[in-house]
Amino acid sequence: MSIPEITQTLLQAKKDQGLSFADLEAILGRNEVWIAALFYRQASASEEEAKLLVEALGLDPSYIQHLTEYPIKGLGPIVPTDPLIYRFYEIMQVYGFPIKQVIQEKFGDGIMSAIDFTLDVEKEADPKGDRVKITMSGKFLPYKKW
Amino acid sequence: MSIPEITQTLLQAKKDQGLSFADLEAILGRNEVWIAALFYRQASASEEEAKLLVEALGLDPSYIQHLTEYPIKGLGPIVPTDPLIYRFYEIMQVYGFPIKQVIQEKFGDGIMSAIDFTLDVEKEADPKGDRVKITMSGKFLPYKKW
Amino acid sequence: MSIPEITQTLLQAKKDQGLSFADLEAILGRNEVWIAALFYRQASASEEEAKLLVEALGLDPSYIQHLTEYPIKGLGPIVPTDPLIYRFYEIMQVYGFPIKQVIQEKFGDGIMSAIDFTLDVEKEADPKGDRVKITMSGKFLPYKKW
Amino acid sequence: MSIPEITQTLLQAKKDQGLSFADLEAILGRNEVWIAALFYRQASASEEEAKLLVEALGLDPSYIQHLTEYPIKGLGPIVPTDPLIYRFYEIMQVYGFPIKQVIQEKFGDGIMSAIDFTLDVEKEADPKGDRVKITMSGKFLPYKKW
Amino acid sequence: MSIPEITQTLLQAKKDQGLSFADLEAILGRNEVWIAALFYRQASASEEEAKLLVEALGLDPSYIQHLTEYPIKGLGPIVPTDPLIYRFYEIMQVYGFPIKQVIQEKFGDGIMSAIDFTLDVEKEADPKGDRVKITMSGKFLPYKKW
Amino acid sequence: MSIPEITQTLLQAKKDQGLSFADLEAILGRNEVWIAALFYRQASASEEEAKLLVEALGLDPSYIQHLTEYPIKGLGPIVPTDPLIYRFYEIMQVYGFPIKQVIQEKFGDGIMSAIDFTLDVEKEADPKGDRVKITMSGKFLPYKKW
Amino acid sequence: MSIPEITQTLLQAKKDQGLSFADLEAILGRNEVWIAALFYRQASASEEEAKLLVEALGLDPSYIQHLTEYPIKGLGPIVPTDPLIYRFYEIMQVYGFPIKQVIQEKFGDGIMSAIDFTLDVEKEADPKGDRVKITMSGKFLPYKKW
Amino acid sequence: MSIPEITQTLLQAKKDQGLSFADLEAILGRNEVWIAALFYRQASASEEEAKLLVEALGLDPSYIQHLTEYPIKGLGPIVPTDPLIYRFYEIMQVYGFPIKQVIQEKFGDGIMSAIDFTLDVEKEADPKGDRVKITMSGKFLPYKKW
Amino acid sequence: MSIPEITQTLLQAKKDQGLSFADLEAILGRNEVWIAALFYRQASASEEEAKLLVEALGLDPSYIQHLTEYPIKGLGPIVPTDPLIYRFYEIMQVYGFPIKQVIQEKFGDGIMSAIDFTLDVEKEADPKGDRVKITMSGKFLPYKKW
Amino acid sequence: MSIPEITQTLLQAKKDQGLSFADLEAILGRNEVWIAALFYRQASASEEEAKLLVEALGLDPSYIQHLTEYPIKGLGPIVPTDPLIYRFYEIMQVYGFPIKQVIQEKFGDGIMSAIDFTLDVEKEADPKGDRVKITMSGKFLPYKKW
Repeated sequence: MSIPEITQTLLQAKKDQGLSFADLEAILGRNEVWIAALFYRQASASEEEAKLLVEALGLDPSYIQHLTEYPIKGLGPIVPTDPLIYRFYEIMQVYGFPIKQVIQEKFGDGIMSAIDFTLDVEKEADPKGDRVKITMSGKFLPYKKW
Repeated sequence: MSIPEITQTLLQAKKDQGLSFADLEAILGRNEVWIAALFYRQASASEEEAKLLVEALGLDPSYIQHLTEYPIKGLGPIVPTDPLIYRFYEIMQVYGFPIKQVIQEKFGDGIMSAIDFTLDVEKEADPKGDRVKITMSGKFLPYKKW
Repeated sequence: MSIPEITQTLLQAKKDQGLSFADLEAILGRNEVWIAALFYRQASASEEEAKLLVEALGLDPSYIQHLTEYPIKGLGPIVPTDPLIYRFYEIMQVYGFPIKQVIQEKFGDGIMSAIDFTLDVEKEADPKGDRVKITMSGKFLPYKKW
Repeated sequence: MSIPEITQTLLQAKKDQGLSFADLEAILGRNEVWIAALFYRQASASEEEAKLLVEALGLDPSYIQHLTEYPIKGLGPIVPTDPLIYRFYEIMQVYGFPIKQVIQEKFGDGIMSAIDFTLDVEKEADPKGDRVKITMSGKFLPYKKW
Repeated sequence: MSIPEITQTLLQAKKDQGLSFADLEAILGRNEVWIAALFYRQASASEEEAKLLVEALGLDPSYIQHLTEYPIKGLGPIVPTDPLIYRFYEIMQVYGFPIKQVIQEKFGDGIMSAIDFTLDVEKEADPKGDRVKITMSGKFLPYKKW
Repeated sequence: MSIPEITQTLLQAKKDQGLSFADLEAILGRNEVWIAALFYRQASASEEEAKLLVEALGLDPSYIQHLTEYPIKGLGPIVPTDPLIYRFYEIMQVYGFPIKQVIQEKFGDGIMSAIDFTLDVEKEADPKGDRVKITMSGKFLPYKKW
Repeated sequence: MSIPEITQTLLQAKKDQGLSFADLEAILGRNEVWIAALFYRQASASEEEAKLLVEALGLDPSYIQHLTEYPIKGLGPIVPTDPLIYRFYEIMQVYGFPIKQVIQEKFGDGIMSAIDFTLDVEKEADPKGDRVKITMSGKFLPYKKW
Repeated sequence: MSIPEITQTLLQAKKDQGLSFADLEAILGRNEVWIAALFYRQASASEEEAKLLVEALGLDPSYIQHLTEYPIKGLGPIVPTDPLIYRFYEIMQVYGFPIKQVIQEKFGDGIMSAIDFTLDVEKEADPKGDRVKITMSGKFLPYKKW
Repeated sequence: MSIPEITQTLLQAKKDQGLSFADLEAILGRNEVWIAALFYRQASASEEEAKLLVEALGLDPSYIQHLTEYPIKGLGPIVPTDPLIYRFYEIMQVYGFPIKQVIQEKFGDGIMSAIDFTLDVEKEADPKGDRVKITMSGKFLPYKKW
Repeated sequence: MSIPEITQTLLQAKKDQGLSFADLEAILGRNEVWIAALFYRQASASEEEAKLLVEALGLDPSYIQHLTEYPIKGLGPIVPTDPLIYRFYEIMQVYGFPIKQVIQEKFGDGIMSAIDFTLDVEKEADPKGDRVKITMSGKFLPYKKW
């Protein structure tokens, strides 16, 4: 697992500033998950977004350029060992084919884009135990025939 | 990849009956994704659910027992090759750590359950191209200390 | 490696009919590579395309339904052993990062779609030895920010 | 993933000089993809090419020797996790066998060389969204019998 | 295998202080296995637990913050090579399916939680050779239907 | 995954006879987990045990010999995909090193035997949700020096 | 490992006819290694070669067509377990980089073709024990620049 | 891939001295491939050979001891990604079984030794393109029966 | 795992005849381990040995030819899951490098042959528990220099 | 491969002192293979053994503590590439099942312990070439039933 060094720096600065991802969402005008993805260098910021973030975190302006670079994406081992992340692997293993059937029935032969894509994480209060709500929205891309 | 034989039978019967998963949702009173999971033997039905399904599909009653058995779960190769399913692997590779950060910030140290869990697939009409909306809801499980 | 049984049937029928993929291109009005992808069940045909193909190959009409089904895609081992196919793996290993740099420089942060995508194979006569020309065209998909 | 250190140096210098790969194409008289491959040490330069590049990038002449060395080739994990690069893996998984059939039908038993090989990346303007055009040209190598 | 550096520091300090995990159990009011998990950064401490531990080990207070962070979990290779740890892999390989049958018979379709979970290690004196007694207790999580 | 054919036969017969593993425990005088292990051919029965089991299940006496054979042990993929079984893999990934530390502190350099070993599964009633209790007892084997 | 069925048939027929590969070399006018490669469907015969072989082996003429087909190549597991074949893997592991250095020194940046390639196996009598002599000859392919 | 550091030093010194492996062959009285294997620490030198080499390369005498040590052998990933080295993997995949048949027919059940083994690389001039000639000679080792 | 079918037949016949491997050792004049290796088709018999075995087992003479064929060797998964066989993998993991050091100190740079090799299994009575004694004897093969 | 740093130090000191493992056997009163295992941190020494070794090697007393620690065991890649060590992997692949049969026939269902275990390496003079004799002795552990 090769968590980028810049990720440690950003997370530490965020902690030192006492900011949550939700706070950063307000400052940058971007969803907190996207901002967390930027922290892990799984997304690239515009010049302006980077400036806002670097200022909010009280970091050296030299970090701006780094955050605008287009990163090599994908992190962690082939099968994740962290239990929280593994559960998403498990969901894919258990519900992958069923989801495929339902998407294809609704849309035809194609895929949900993971690029033209958004992902939200919300907390749902529940008397039996709070729930994590994940909402993904990806453009449907039909297979082109040629 | 070892798609269970019963899956082929169920899919074929569903096709022959001209039923969609949405139709089955109405008949069984269960979400279409869960029903598709049942087709792939990633979920187990109650006696009653199995009866309703087998009748709807016009299959032999002997299938009822099969559908109530608790299956061995998990399907497909370690890294999926089907592009639609792979996108979920990619989402885990790219957004796994960011999601972990955001969940932990909102909930503390723990995970989203993939067992006390629901998943919906919806079609969002969009003039720039329809979108696939996936909603997951899993109970947050905090790490127990002992 | 699990080449679908239907692939053998289709290839044998094509041979028996003395048809080339180029001939089928003329009959179906689809590119020969796409038709070959259909043979390997890596693509799905419309009712009409399936009918044209099944007739051209002199096969039983029952094959029509099969060819319109949306298949599970991806074939062969993780690292291909067939030398012709391996060369495409090698091209990815050797030129993957360089291509990424050049695409990103021209388009920004995003990917070339493998779904809204076409692929042509041509023969280029060359006195020093004929050449295989592969032309891929995929829609550029910029990373969505949210 | 072990991106060579020299790659970082070259990319940074290119950025500092405000040069694109297209600019370097004009300076070196070599295709931009090949130059990007040189950056990642997937290709080796002649003395003269190395000199032109090092000068253009304002680097120390000691880099010239490095760039003329014949590198160990192949970069990244067995299955790429970066979505842009993965799409080429997916193309091989989905279209590998169909391409093999079409090449063999046109040329006989043999392969497309990945050594006597060129690869171009172009931007195709398209009102429905610009497209990435990749053109590969590899010498056909028939299997020798002996 | 990437044992965290902090683990070495904690183990060394524990040795220097002449403390056993059982001693730490008395000091922290937490089970020794959980404390060992904290050492390997497989668990996160509360502020107070961290303070107690850091004091007991005579370490710099700066370690307190580290121990309260929510770690990336999972350690070691896919198949463990250490014989003590491998035996647990072997137990899963040999008794995994039998355990599944018995749990399902007693509880229905679901799993034993590894999050709402405790694990104890005890020494059982036995004239034929002392025995290691491991007691796991995990909440049963029934598969939710939706 | 290659579940032995005999396992299916035994499970079906047990179902047809309306017997639980707990019932078989009473009949054979062996723990239900051990009996389930015998079903999966991860253990071998004595002539007498096999006879008792085959009679109880109403199977042909020819099964007696099969059940006394010493099987090739170990079932399932390298990393299990079934969520119930995976949790034991996760426990090993997360708690493997901590357990090793605690066992070594109590016993010295050595291992817990997985051969001179017993495993029990119990249901613990709990108002917050019933719990699965697993008790393992393995002989400690100190490393021999020579 | 999936040795083609036709291979068994060919080897058995060769045995029944009392022919060695050397005998077939004389009959077909092709090297015995190439003929053995044809047996394993790692090479494809011309119509005439196939006819000669099928006659020599006393097989049904229907085999002629099979032998002229262009096969999917590559056989056996990723790391071979058969000791004779493993030694070639070992030679690549131990001598791969040294060979690369020597070839590059003699020829420049490029590879030895495995397509425009021949391989001979000879027996060298030696009083200290006979030796296997393998002679490979592959066209040198210099990396093309573009 | 973990190319030993000493390999870099040796290759650089060889370059600085303007020596080819063929030159070193003349100086050491050992084949150039074996010398290249020594460079990569896949072989061990006698005291005298090491002295000759270290002197020829103008290196510090302290390298002598290193070169006489018996190294851990085997270099690079499981499936090589460097195209030149991969071709030897491909040869094993494609011609491994055919070679086995031919060797066994000539020698009986056994293997070609990769230890009592020599390997030569030669350049064969050819008007259609120079060829790489590799000659391997390994003692045949018949399987001992006992 | 693909235990050859003939192995089942041979083991069953041996059982039916009430013969132990030790009995077969007396009949064939070969060590019982070698005979067991023959059963698993990891060794090949002479005509005479095959005849003696087939007669002793009361099998059809057609098995004689099968047993004289030179098999593809190596059985089972990359890392064995059967506990008895795994222990040999563990011995290699734990004692592999130490054994290498000791062999090299006694013999120089080279290996123990696994071809010119014998292996015995004996039972050593021991009041603290009987012991398995394995004796391997392999010819030392020094690395040839050339 | 992550050979511990202490191993290099110990091997170098042993060389500097001109001691063989056999010499150390005399000094420590432990078998040379066990001592080599201690060098690779695959075994742990008593205080006294560590003292004797550290003195014999002329090392700093601070090494004593290190050598008494209970190490994480298992070294090297999944499939070893070093030819000497690989031969033990090959022996397991080729003779693993046969050994299992013979041990089970002599002892019943169980394993040879790799913990209550000794291993000797001897040199057997032989006019046809010296032989490596490996003797393993492991306690037989019968499967416990419960």
